Amino acid sequence: MSSVTDTMNVFADLQSEPPGDLRLRIDRAVTDALARAGTPPAPPRLARALAHATQPGGARIRPTILLSVALACGDDRPALADAAAAALELIHCASLVHDDLPCFDDAATRRGKPAVHRAFSEPLAVLTGDALIVLGFELLARAAAEAPERCAPLVATLARQTGMPDGICAGQGWESETQVDLSAYHRAKTGALFVAATRMGAIAAGQPPDPWDELGARIGEAFQVADDLRDAVMSAEDLGKPVGQDPLHDRPNAVTALGVEGATQRLKDILAGVVASIPSCPGEARLAAMVRWQAERLVPQPHARSRA
Amino acid sequence: MSSVTDTMNVFADLQSEPPGDLRLRIDRAVTDALARAGTPPAPPRLARALAHATQPGGARIRPTILLSVALACGDDRPALADAAAAALELIHCASLVHDDLPCFDDAATRRGKPAVHRAFSEPLAVLTGDALIVLGFELLARAAAEAPERCAPLVATLARQTGMPDGICAGQGWESETQVDLSAYHRAKTGALFVAATRMGAIAAGQPPDPWDELGARIGEAFQVADDLRDAVMSAEDLGKPVGQDPLHDRPNAVTALGVEGATQRLKDILAGVVASIPSCPGEARLAAMVRWQAERLVPQPHARSRA
Repeated sequence: MSSVTDTMNVFADLQSEPPGDLRLRIDRAVTDALARAGTPPAPPRLARALAHATQPGGARIRPTILLSVALACGDDRPALADAAAAALELIHCASLVHDDLPCFDDAATRRGKPAVHRAFSEPLAVLTGDALIVLGFELLARAAAEAPERCAPLVATLARQTGMPDGICAGQGWESETQVDLSAYHRAKTGALFVAATRMGAIAAGQPPDPWDELGARIGEAFQVADDLRDAVMSAEDLGKPVGQDPLHDRPNAVTALGVEGATQRLKDILAGVVASIPSCPGEARLAAMVRWQAERLVPQPHARSRA
Repeated sequence: MSSVTDTMNVFADLQSEPPGDLRLRIDRAVTDALARAGTPPAPPRLARALAHATQPGGARIRPTILLSVALACGDDRPALADAAAAALELIHCASLVHDDLPCFDDAATRRGKPAVHRAFSEPLAVLTGDALIVLGFELLARAAAEAPERCAPLVATLARQTGMPDGICAGQGWESETQVDLSAYHRAKTGALFVAATRMGAIAAGQPPDPWDELGARIGEAFQVADDLRDAVMSAEDLGKPVGQDPLHDRPNAVTALGVEGATQRLKDILAGVVASIPSCPGEARLAAMVRWQAERLVPQPHARSRA
């Protein structure tokens, strides 16, 4: 385990450096995947809807974490790590498209643009989510041809963290229950894809994934609290999506439970634990810097400034 | 290539034998997958919706073809073939659940039961489709642990025949276009999962898949014409789903184009070609019998009787 104090010293130099090289790798992998999916004879409107749902993209936090872990583990198969990062991002984008549907959040906007069901149609939004899920698994299979023994663990991990009973589908499914297992709900709804990020980063680089579970789970917990805070303190215009959805849909929320100040303190506590949970590995210091950089972005703007 | 006449002689003895052993294998693999997906802490209603969408199931034609091809190729990894068969069936069930949604066919019934969005809710129907797609890929990854080199080809094949630009998502996507590439539409909408069936059967048994493309494509073509015929000549009660959806949604249809007699003749012509396209393999005779048995079931009841 890292010492938090040692790691904080590394941050001092590195925390303002944006992960531009990782962003390039992720965007290139997503663009390549979309180009193949849109190759004739693809139906043109569905092909455009796939592009609309995934480009230019949001913060790409999950694939950035995945590549950061892969780098920390040696990144001996960078093409496979890139495919894994893009696969994870496509699954995340698919979940946003389906969550925005009229029967869920009925969101008009996403990432500052019309939601897919508004820009295209509801049938094309359902199909866009379906096709992005499938494309994620296809990317893994194609890239794993060069390291066949890594295919099954990558596909199994992405599937487990996406589907039932532990993945984001399960998380969303809890919102249709009258009696909610809150711990299972949060772990599945937000935590699952962060655990996928850390585990898949390790697998793509040929390392065992289990030591990376805790880091992913803690990042997921931090992200959930940060998202609740942003939803409470920022405007729909700043976020590019509707706010206040949790109280509207009667969903559990850290701000509702703890208040803004309480939730902000909770976020800071979790973030301290995140850094401490990085396993020993060759690229530990750089990974700690990256995690810290991502963590800074998690704290909503007004609070981030008050910490400087 | 088989001689049609030789193969017909084999059929004479075998065509009435139902594939009960295959049905057992498929049902057991589907049941096992559903049990894992529904393990606590799965959200209970979504778990029940997954079971509703997949059990007791329809004719299980696609996985039966997959296992028949695997057997013809030696079936050296029966657990992997079973997983591949169940994975393909889960993807097919997912497509039915999403196709039945209000924004597509708005079907009230499926397989004689309320459609998932009626029995549960529209959000749970969207999630059921998503979770079944994911579960399909998860099954392949888990079962391929014993034959890692078969994982990537199985996942890539199932993904290609499900997603964009060639799979059933693309097929459904064509229904949102004003200018339709009819050949691409039919190949993707109905043919894709039959090609998945024959290719995956070969891969699961360690054989090269390319020689099996033509058989899958021809079965898919026959199935499309047979479905159009059933839609035209049978009642909603007989079929357990609404009829007349193609004219209603202005979709291309063999009966609209050729009439009932013309479409029936076209189906017979295609079925003759199906048997002729079986590649040489150790289990060729048994496979031909199985294909013939499936083909008999494709011809709508009144016409099947007139052929006896």
